[in-house]
Amino acid sequence: MKKIINDPDLVVSETLQGLALANPDVEYIPGVEVIARKEKTGNVGIVSGGGSGHEPAHAGYVGKGMLDAAVAGNMFSSPSPDRIIEGIRHANSGKGVLLVIKNYSGDIMNFEMAEEIAKMEGIEVDHVVVRDDVAVEDSTYSTGRRGIAGTVYVHKIAGAMAATGASLAEVKRAAEKAIAEIRSMGMAMKACTLPAVGHPNFELAEDEIEIGMGIHGEPGVERCSIQTAAELAKTLTDHIFADYNYDNSEVALLVNGLGATPIMELYILNKEVHKILEARGIKVAHNLVGNYMTAIDMAGASVTLMKLDDELKKLLLAPCHTPGLCVGD
Amino acid sequence: MKKIINDPDLVVSETLQGLALANPDVEYIPGVEVIARKEKTGNVGIVSGGGSGHEPAHAGYVGKGMLDAAVAGNMFSSPSPDRIIEGIRHANSGKGVLLVIKNYSGDIMNFEMAEEIAKMEGIEVDHVVVRDDVAVEDSTYSTGRRGIAGTVYVHKIAGAMAATGASLAEVKRAAEKAIAEIRSMGMAMKACTLPAVGHPNFELAEDEIEIGMGIHGEPGVERCSIQTAAELAKTLTDHIFADYNYDNSEVALLVNGLGATPIMELYILNKEVHKILEARGIKVAHNLVGNYMTAIDMAGASVTLMKLDDELKKLLLAPCHTPGLCVGD
Repeated sequence: MKKIINDPDLVVSETLQGLALANPDVEYIPGVEVIARKEKTGNVGIVSGGGSGHEPAHAGYVGKGMLDAAVAGNMFSSPSPDRIIEGIRHANSGKGVLLVIKNYSGDIMNFEMAEEIAKMEGIEVDHVVVRDDVAVEDSTYSTGRRGIAGTVYVHKIAGAMAATGASLAEVKRAAEKAIAEIRSMGMAMKACTLPAVGHPNFELAEDEIEIGMGIHGEPGVERCSIQTAAELAKTLTDHIFADYNYDNSEVALLVNGLGATPIMELYILNKEVHKILEARGIKVAHNLVGNYMTAIDMAGASVTLMKLDDELKKLLLAPCHTPGLCVGD
Repeated sequence: MKKIINDPDLVVSETLQGLALANPDVEYIPGVEVIARKEKTGNVGIVSGGGSGHEPAHAGYVGKGMLDAAVAGNMFSSPSPDRIIEGIRHANSGKGVLLVIKNYSGDIMNFEMAEEIAKMEGIEVDHVVVRDDVAVEDSTYSTGRRGIAGTVYVHKIAGAMAATGASLAEVKRAAEKAIAEIRSMGMAMKACTLPAVGHPNFELAEDEIEIGMGIHGEPGVERCSIQTAAELAKTLTDHIFADYNYDNSEVALLVNGLGATPIMELYILNKEVHKILEARGIKVAHNLVGNYMTAIDMAGASVTLMKLDDELKKLLLAPCHTPGLCVGD
């Protein structure tokens, strides 16, 4: 295993320290592995988090217009409730806190437990659960669909709504509206290697890919030979369109890399997805291409669509500035 | 070879098409493989470019506050003069054009030839050459030091100076001032695979890394066993400090990934570099961590420092908004 690390047991805390050093708008809270925005906005606080290994998610989305705090678990492991409570405390500036949870059983359990404890402390807290992955209905770590790259849009929409000064109920409503309009589908070409394990968590043959693989290497729907970018775009969007009708609508499009796939390949995939969307009368109002929700050093990509109405479009295009995502001037 | 492509011969044009679809501020000029900013600013135009495979460089830096046009060659091959002239024409809004060239013999020859032809067309053109890589004095493709990740800072400084409405001579002066203050040093853990070749361009053993390797896989200074992040930070910065004194100064710091290295590892390296800089009384005024100048799917990283005075700091922190780099609100 060749990785730029010091000690496999320290990768999470050292990653967050390195991120905080690069981003003067946030602080790193040691021990609980929280990245918190320094500025107290007076608005509803947005908190997300989950297992580490998905960088820039979630700590890279703390900042103006997105999250107020991100809570990191160990690699691919849910953060414990005591960590999440610290995130909630830091994100609260008196108007309540919304938790954005990816649908994994451990995350649900720990975030909900933290929510209860925070409520006992007198903090108003509510949550939403992201389940954007259309690949499988239940999976290794989830009951119901997994939350994957579409979570970044939920951060964006919730953060933008909070920045308007809206109430917790209003911010939750906007986040749930976004969640209902988001679908994702991914594929992997190479497994990832956990630093503490030292070897890939599964093997794919030299010409083999897996369609619908999860961002922790959970099984997908099919193993097949490598396809062209055009075929892959069709495979991934076919799964999305089988689940939800985006025809003749306006959408946000995210072509996401899983960590080790060069941006060149993501742009080629993006071109092919556009071609398919155009044929269905789907207009792309905003388009992200890059590493937004990764799986350590997994090679592969996912496609996410979010159908927009006027409200979601306005919130999506509202300015944000974080290490992971910049929108606006 | 597993890559998300359609045809190895089309990767450059399809990458640029995919990028232009994601960025409404630019247009793709087919045939000559130019990405040009749509807005004519009335300021000095900044043009860069070079072989493809270094994405988001250079097309990803076209936009507000950075480049007005980027010219792409084939994979790892200099763009021909006729392509560069198109870039110059698109970037010119009457006040002249500055070319930012990485120091590779092919690039120097072709950009200078294009400059001469553009001058004959009546366009005022000048150029600067970036030679930030301290690894080797001469290399496979260059006489003198190679231009690598520090080039991104030259784009930023030149673009910010142009945005003030400065003359071509003033923009060139600022770019050359930046170049004089920039040093970079890199290392590779895994070779890259050219799509048209289909296998890695060299082999490194399971525990072996190469210090000072170029962004096309050119030889570096030393092969050695994998080091900890702390040791790597010391190895890379030792080479930089042996060449230029940054002690007790204010700097911009770029920890750059070569394409396949997860951002987690770059953040850990960033933390270790900060520790070393602090011990030398070096203050980091701005810090980038991510994939800014890649080598297709090479694994590895580079460290770049730029010493700042008041002018360079102001230009560095001036707003820019491109797919590859965002600074400001």
